[in-house]
Amino acid sequence: MERNIKLVVEYDGTDYCGWQEQDNAPTVQAALKRSIVQLTGEEVILNGAGRTDTGVHARGQVANFRTHSRIPAPAFVKALNAKLPPDIVIQEAEEVPMDFHAQYAAKAKAYSYQIISQPIRPVLENRYAHWVWFPLRIESLKEACGYLIGTHDFSSFEAANSPRKSRIRTINFIDILQEHCYIKIFVEADGFLYHMVRNIVGTLLTIERKSLFPKQMKNILEAKSRQIAGPTVAAKGLCLEYVKYENRPEA
Amino acid sequence: MERNIKLVVEYDGTDYCGWQEQDNAPTVQAALKRSIVQLTGEEVILNGAGRTDTGVHARGQVANFRTHSRIPAPAFVKALNAKLPPDIVIQEAEEVPMDFHAQYAAKAKAYSYQIISQPIRPVLENRYAHWVWFPLRIESLKEACGYLIGTHDFSSFEAANSPRKSRIRTINFIDILQEHCYIKIFVEADGFLYHMVRNIVGTLLTIERKSLFPKQMKNILEAKSRQIAGPTVAAKGLCLEYVKYENRPEA
Repeated sequence: MERNIKLVVEYDGTDYCGWQEQDNAPTVQAALKRSIVQLTGEEVILNGAGRTDTGVHARGQVANFRTHSRIPAPAFVKALNAKLPPDIVIQEAEEVPMDFHAQYAAKAKAYSYQIISQPIRPVLENRYAHWVWFPLRIESLKEACGYLIGTHDFSSFEAANSPRKSRIRTINFIDILQEHCYIKIFVEADGFLYHMVRNIVGTLLTIERKSLFPKQMKNILEAKSRQIAGPTVAAKGLCLEYVKYENRPEA
Repeated sequence: MERNIKLVVEYDGTDYCGWQEQDNAPTVQAALKRSIVQLTGEEVILNGAGRTDTGVHARGQVANFRTHSRIPAPAFVKALNAKLPPDIVIQEAEEVPMDFHAQYAAKAKAYSYQIISQPIRPVLENRYAHWVWFPLRIESLKEACGYLIGTHDFSSFEAANSPRKSRIRTINFIDILQEHCYIKIFVEADGFLYHMVRNIVGTLLTIERKSLFPKQMKNILEAKSRQIAGPTVAAKGLCLEYVKYENRPEA
């Protein structure tokens, strides 16, 4: 009997060319598929909730695959973890209805972006954070992010030449947490345009570096133009935190 | 005119065979000396406050060297950082009296040891923490550590066959901090025996894993025997946090 298995996957993206399988480059999807083939003897189609880019990390990526294997769903955790490399781990495994698709069924996703703000380049945490040498005004960051919450056309924050039909997305909330020199920006939305979080953070940092008023973010959003927003910041600060599905919060 | 320069050094020890220079192996001392030679054109003697082991990190290692260079002391920070590899950075540089010696003048040092306690092996933070699959009782850890504070013969926690004359050291304080599954043990002492922190943590974890009474730590300390203490835990959880000198707290 065929079953549909849902996995929650954590990975350090440093040494991968992103989630999505490609020729001649190490990817998380390929590594995970390989471990499933080793375990079940079956070739599988593995759907991921989001295609994280090269160098992006995940604490709660979600994927699903169909299998004829009789392994009880929760046992996939230990069995796959024994085969996966040290920088990928399965956190949860469960059986889901046959029509569940990790990407299409997703109702919301959350990403975090970590920044270190200090005069001297950091060494510890360097793998998981983007460094800025200038101070950040937390209240200013919060005000700027406030203009982004809700349903908007996020064209200003989409990578150039992206093929999407609609640039309208809904940001449910943005939290900004500070601890010493570490700042974490946490964004939950119903979906994200390509490079959206990294472009929003790049714009926030430009506002701070140039000491602009936070309201500048509203103008940039309303301009619907990639040209006037800030640069795309480094992948290593980004982490896919969780994916939410109907009636089953994953957070 | 010759001057004595004191440096505060941060490093990710993952890719180094410890602090101390040796043939045919990458060390932090060798990398730092190389950058000083490149900058000043002088061969220098570089004294480190503590010889951290292979894989051990530092947030506040202290070193000193004598130089005839005319570079103002604070300018060594930027100048050396431009030459150092990404996993080593100078945090501070200052001129000190000619008789200052980073090792001999040290009055106290503090190390932290980070543990992740969760059922599934961790991926993010894996570089800077030791994983245990069993839960830890924070109150029990605190009680066990309480027996170690003060002046004692720490023979039970010294690596076998160490050449020290005296095994008597004074632990000033031990702090235990918990945040979700992360536990950080912070130890300040006037000095440490070889592997002392890693052996103390190994003993704490053995007490927890076997569900022993915390008072067991007192018995182990008093036995003055390496045989009955716990194993030496992984280097990657250990970080040299700071070194203190007379009348000049470094914390």
